[in-house]
Amino acid sequence: MKNYSIAKSRRIRSTPYTSRIEKQGVTAYTTYNHMLLPAAFGSLEDSYHHLKEHVQVWDVAGERQVEITGKDSAKLMQLMTCRDLSESKVGRCYYCPIIDDQACIINDPIVLKLSEEKWWISIADSDVILFAKGLAIGHKFDVKIIEPNVNIMAVQGPKSFKLMEKIFGEKITKLKFFGFDYFDFNGAKYLIAQSGWSKQGGYEIYVENTNSGLELYDYLFEKGKNFNVKPGCPNLIERIESALLSYGNDMDSNDNPLECGFDKFVNLDSDIIFLGKEKLKKIKSEGVKRKLMGIKIEAKAISLSSSLDVKNEKGTKIGELRSACYSPHFGKVIGIAMLDKLFARDSQPIEIDINNSTFNGKVCDLPFI
Amino acid sequence: MKNYSIAKSRRIRSTPYTSRIEKQGVTAYTTYNHMLLPAAFGSLEDSYHHLKEHVQVWDVAGERQVEITGKDSAKLMQLMTCRDLSESKVGRCYYCPIIDDQACIINDPIVLKLSEEKWWISIADSDVILFAKGLAIGHKFDVKIIEPNVNIMAVQGPKSFKLMEKIFGEKITKLKFFGFDYFDFNGAKYLIAQSGWSKQGGYEIYVENTNSGLELYDYLFEKGKNFNVKPGCPNLIERIESALLSYGNDMDSNDNPLECGFDKFVNLDSDIIFLGKEKLKKIKSEGVKRKLMGIKIEAKAISLSSSLDVKNEKGTKIGELRSACYSPHFGKVIGIAMLDKLFARDSQPIEIDINNSTFNGKVCDLPFI
Repeated sequence: MKNYSIAKSRRIRSTPYTSRIEKQGVTAYTTYNHMLLPAAFGSLEDSYHHLKEHVQVWDVAGERQVEITGKDSAKLMQLMTCRDLSESKVGRCYYCPIIDDQACIINDPIVLKLSEEKWWISIADSDVILFAKGLAIGHKFDVKIIEPNVNIMAVQGPKSFKLMEKIFGEKITKLKFFGFDYFDFNGAKYLIAQSGWSKQGGYEIYVENTNSGLELYDYLFEKGKNFNVKPGCPNLIERIESALLSYGNDMDSNDNPLECGFDKFVNLDSDIIFLGKEKLKKIKSEGVKRKLMGIKIEAKAISLSSSLDVKNEKGTKIGELRSACYSPHFGKVIGIAMLDKLFARDSQPIEIDINNSTFNGKVCDLPFI
Repeated sequence: MKNYSIAKSRRIRSTPYTSRIEKQGVTAYTTYNHMLLPAAFGSLEDSYHHLKEHVQVWDVAGERQVEITGKDSAKLMQLMTCRDLSESKVGRCYYCPIIDDQACIINDPIVLKLSEEKWWISIADSDVILFAKGLAIGHKFDVKIIEPNVNIMAVQGPKSFKLMEKIFGEKITKLKFFGFDYFDFNGAKYLIAQSGWSKQGGYEIYVENTNSGLELYDYLFEKGKNFNVKPGCPNLIERIESALLSYGNDMDSNDNPLECGFDKFVNLDSDIIFLGKEKLKKIKSEGVKRKLMGIKIEAKAISLSSSLDVKNEKGTKIGELRSACYSPHFGKVIGIAMLDKLFARDSQPIEIDINNSTFNGKVCDLPFI
């Protein structure tokens, strides 16, 4: 695929780390919540192997926060998600599909409960703040909704645990997956969660003080030398192999959470109130018509910038491939596809045209690994 | 400024015209409403001169539509904007700042009134659909809100009138500025407005049928040969010289419409109901604290990717430069800046640091030309 430049402007916001990563060799950007998100530091495959073995520091400031505070904050938070948050605990992260009244997915953020009346929604790429504001105004909720100046850096990879212990002490090793707590560095306090957009383990540091955050950024590279630390970013290959879904890529506002396999985050049996609940009950009782599945293709390369038709062995379209990459682990192309329910089953043979050649493949369950 | 690639993916949607413009030599993209928006076809300055003299066809599909239909559609539309739409007419376009309950600008779209119960909001870069949905749900409005499959191509430049007449006949020359009507080409019907994001004159074609739209796209180039037609895109230089504001660049959700000089679109005296009305009355009576102004700088080049401090002659920060370019018309750098009210006056001397050198300049009224 030919390369095109990204035209920078204030509208596509730089992050506090942009000047750092540009010195460190970032080669490609995407945009995420009206912000620059690094997409490559040279070879995707080299970065993939490094991530699985060592530790990387990522500029993921594009994962913006929507902060909801006030008396009705829990009510508004619950109204927006089909996941039951009635038993949610302060200090925990929750993966929560945000859906509208038609049960269509608007975003799939991580929700952090900071207190009974303070929530952060760590969003994927859509303006959830506008949905929350519209709902709050319409319902006359007693809440305040802002985008705080929080710029996340992620520390990911198997050696992230050792590196972070070296900086923040043993306490950080006690943090459970999707737990968060506050940690000190150089006089500043950081909210740190054991989370991140890879399955190689690691942390996300919610930086509220930009200047001290930059000191921490540099210190991570200084202390990380022994761990072979490198700058990185969410890695297309790693995230597809791990089946970490990407909003806008694998699913969008035309899909519902049951089609996307989010069944365990769809709580229809309790008496919580959320948008699209009746619609989801109907969908569940009737059964979904499509399903997000894995696909393995007997090909050695793919470069996807929009959906690609998936056909069965008779050449009939049965769905669309939405993300794909060459997987070093499987030695072939793998991808995530939305398929007609009838064909959304492990081992279903498929055909797909890539650059005017037809390749064979098979459907599989997610995750791949 | 160093060039970085844009990482393409399904999340950054291609347009129906993407494959066309890539054959025609697009060199840079930005993203707009989760879609690719061409940002350059080679030299910005060459394209600027061409646009002012000839005719260009632009892929501006990124200007997505939010379609609101139903009994309460006019009520919802009015609720979102400070511009009085009570006398609005079918077949007309209206520039309407969308503001929230704090009178902060959420978007600055063109609103098209298709019928008393059908509106299109032709949006700048933010998810207005989520705001509209939130408000409609909260207020229990009887409306349907969708993003229709409409992909705008713009025909801009002084020769656009002749070119469009050649294709659509004399009727199109009767269209007034910001008026729209339906026109036929090859059996398909097109909503066409006399509008567009340049001040060189032209049209925006709201393409609803993708296949026939592509035929029209090709036909524009075929018939446009005699008019020296070229592919193009919103041009940074032309739009700054013309002071066509860009949401996210010149203003954002921290600004109110009175700070941005939208006074004539802020209707506080009628009895219409819109969000932020009381807040705007208060701001108006107290007077704004900042104001969007033009700036001319005695420099020959600038490349802006985030705000730059503007100082007065004593070196005190008085505001921030938000967009800027070298202007061939003025032979110097010009830009758009948000300035403290005290200094927001024509001829105010300023200083600005560009790449570690200090340049002198002066504040001026908008538009420049």
